[in-house]
Amino acid sequence: MSQIKGKAVVAQSGGPTAVINASVAGVVETALANESVFTAVYGSYNGILGVLKEELFDLGREDPQQIALLRRSPGAALGSCRYKLKDLESNRADYERILEVFRAHDIRYFFYAGGNDSMDTADKLAHLAAEVGYELIVVGVPKTIDNDLAYTDHCPGYGSVAKYTAVSAMEAGRDTESMWTHDTVTVHEVMGRNAGWIAAAAGLARRNEEDAPHLIYMPEVPFTPEKFAADVQECLRRFNRCFIIVGEGIRDPDGNYVAEMGGAFGQDAFGHKQLGGAAEALRAIVEERVGVKCRTQKPGTMQRSAMHFASATDVAEAYMAGAAAVKAALEGISGKMVSLVREDGDGQYRCTTGLVDLAKVANAEKPLPREYINEAGNGVTEAFLAYARPLIAGTAEVELGDDGLPVYARLARHMVEKKTRRQYAV
Amino acid sequence: MSQIKGKAVVAQSGGPTAVINASVAGVVETALANESVFTAVYGSYNGILGVLKEELFDLGREDPQQIALLRRSPGAALGSCRYKLKDLESNRADYERILEVFRAHDIRYFFYAGGNDSMDTADKLAHLAAEVGYELIVVGVPKTIDNDLAYTDHCPGYGSVAKYTAVSAMEAGRDTESMWTHDTVTVHEVMGRNAGWIAAAAGLARRNEEDAPHLIYMPEVPFTPEKFAADVQECLRRFNRCFIIVGEGIRDPDGNYVAEMGGAFGQDAFGHKQLGGAAEALRAIVEERVGVKCRTQKPGTMQRSAMHFASATDVAEAYMAGAAAVKAALEGISGKMVSLVREDGDGQYRCTTGLVDLAKVANAEKPLPREYINEAGNGVTEAFLAYARPLIAGTAEVELGDDGLPVYARLARHMVEKKTRRQYAV
Repeated sequence: MSQIKGKAVVAQSGGPTAVINASVAGVVETALANESVFTAVYGSYNGILGVLKEELFDLGREDPQQIALLRRSPGAALGSCRYKLKDLESNRADYERILEVFRAHDIRYFFYAGGNDSMDTADKLAHLAAEVGYELIVVGVPKTIDNDLAYTDHCPGYGSVAKYTAVSAMEAGRDTESMWTHDTVTVHEVMGRNAGWIAAAAGLARRNEEDAPHLIYMPEVPFTPEKFAADVQECLRRFNRCFIIVGEGIRDPDGNYVAEMGGAFGQDAFGHKQLGGAAEALRAIVEERVGVKCRTQKPGTMQRSAMHFASATDVAEAYMAGAAAVKAALEGISGKMVSLVREDGDGQYRCTTGLVDLAKVANAEKPLPREYINEAGNGVTEAFLAYARPLIAGTAEVELGDDGLPVYARLARHMVEKKTRRQYAV
Repeated sequence: MSQIKGKAVVAQSGGPTAVINASVAGVVETALANESVFTAVYGSYNGILGVLKEELFDLGREDPQQIALLRRSPGAALGSCRYKLKDLESNRADYERILEVFRAHDIRYFFYAGGNDSMDTADKLAHLAAEVGYELIVVGVPKTIDNDLAYTDHCPGYGSVAKYTAVSAMEAGRDTESMWTHDTVTVHEVMGRNAGWIAAAAGLARRNEEDAPHLIYMPEVPFTPEKFAADVQECLRRFNRCFIIVGEGIRDPDGNYVAEMGGAFGQDAFGHKQLGGAAEALRAIVEERVGVKCRTQKPGTMQRSAMHFASATDVAEAYMAGAAAVKAALEGISGKMVSLVREDGDGQYRCTTGLVDLAKVANAEKPLPREYINEAGNGVTEAFLAYARPLIAGTAEVELGDDGLPVYARLARHMVEKKTRRQYAV
């Protein structure tokens, strides 16, 4: 088919990962190498907000070294957001605004790196464009530390958070092992509101039974304080110490978040409600029901931006996914998300890319399968470890400055002149 | 002077650092190389508790490769503790027990890696031994991430926590920079109950004004919610986002820990008392007084065990300090702690070791000097950065296993037969 000539926009959505910039580098470098098709490559400032507000910048004017450096820079260099678009069925304003901006700049290609909400947005946009007869190619690039996108073996971003979570559990676990006569139990809270993929990854740190983490709690398994207290007691009996990983999104059997639980274990000794997340709730249970001192820690956004110990495999695959999105677009393919396809029939891990309908990704979630969780519901299986191990292979190289710290890209963001002559309220 | 022949004991005390095992490696390898003096080298299991309980193990029977691997293994491989010895003036039981165990095993050398409490213990033990006529050589090895020991330029352990804190602030700061339209303010809580050295180290991440961390709060500067809210507002005006480092031990002008503060900013909207540390207290102030969403995170023990990105300088100096303690002992020196001495008269950083009286170290603390804190009390000065930069130079090499994760030592701990024939209650 004949290729549409026009501009391309790339946008990042939702929480950053260590490697979402690597995907952007894959998009930008591949697009800039095809200037007979892409008349310009723009970045959208702060995700879809940048399109709605017509805040676009010219990636072709960036220093190519900074674009290359994106491959090993955490955060979302284009800017990201959590803006929820108006519902297309009841209010087309947001989507029409996007097309208005695209038309004004002759934007014919849209590359969107994000999770399933973003794929939903991309899908609806593709349909509306077709409906109104505006030639537009939309390709999604998977991105989420949560690893919960369906129709892809795994998501760029997961390998790095998995590696960081494993090394953190391994190292902090050694601390608890050293200090058990005083700090006997540690609860380490990781991200993952709906899926336990990140919590499970801590299991990679456990080479021997005595290694941390001894217990892992994932949102897929209903949590009860009784079972938890018994697990901790058993662990203390065996090892004198207990290092626990908890996913922020664990829920009780009624589906309530443990982080928000009331009741005795949700209150401190003075009856004050505990705030501050799942780890604090578990600490209260350990101190009240087991009767030993308990520490908590929460790496927060550190875990999704730790490029200094990112997975080399993840970085390479994130770049590959970005490049594959552009290659698909060059073939005239639209309405698809790039997927990662595992080929390990010969026992050797290899990863290639595929394509999947945006709509399918948009409407699905992939929780941790039951066979990846141990029978007791407090750890992972060898099947999970076999799945996850290749994803953390290799340590990404990071450029270090004279000051001993990494050098990360920051884009100049040469803003493009506005053309729509109206402010759009978001 | 003639050398005493006898056994040596090495013990670790208090919270681990990334490099306290490197100091132990320095002690053990140097002592084992001098077997004409040291008839055996024992480890004390769980700090001084191991001596009191006569739980000693023979480091000469460990695999030498594991001893070498201690140089790049976090935690305290001998075991540590926070046991507070009985006061020597009012109750000599603990100290007499230590000498009883030392006598029973012909232990004539005691190497103690710890902070100022440990140096106090070591000093008293040396005096009691002299008083009762038991020939004993006691040498201290400095250890603390807090960097608050006096009479030493810096402490082994600080360079690594400084490097980790800086890279964490740099990376998580990029996350806040990416997500400011949604997650506008982040508060990152670091250790340091009495001194702001760790918090200050985050300043190393700031190469430009827009870089995180924008604000740093240290225990040396009295904290008020009014000034803090104004600081945050000013930062938001300039950068649209704010990444804040807070030391766990910040206090109000009356000396009360902010983490335990009552009042409006110590409660949530429902009047529930905030628990969970300084970061949570600051989050409440940001959300209530500034009116923007605020994230918190707390790396906890991760920060003192992050060997995967430790300072190569710190690792080398920690080993050197351990080796220097044994060399001093070989010269018959006792009652001293090894100090680190900076020699940078020519502008080139070099570090050698010195010796300082245990008693002097025991009774002193070294808070962050005023000239290292900026005038506004919410950041650091160039003088501090010049002090700290050499300490984070180089990234320590870590052995990676086939699974992509570091390989850390674990000692076999061949326990030595007890000889005192009594249980000592601790």
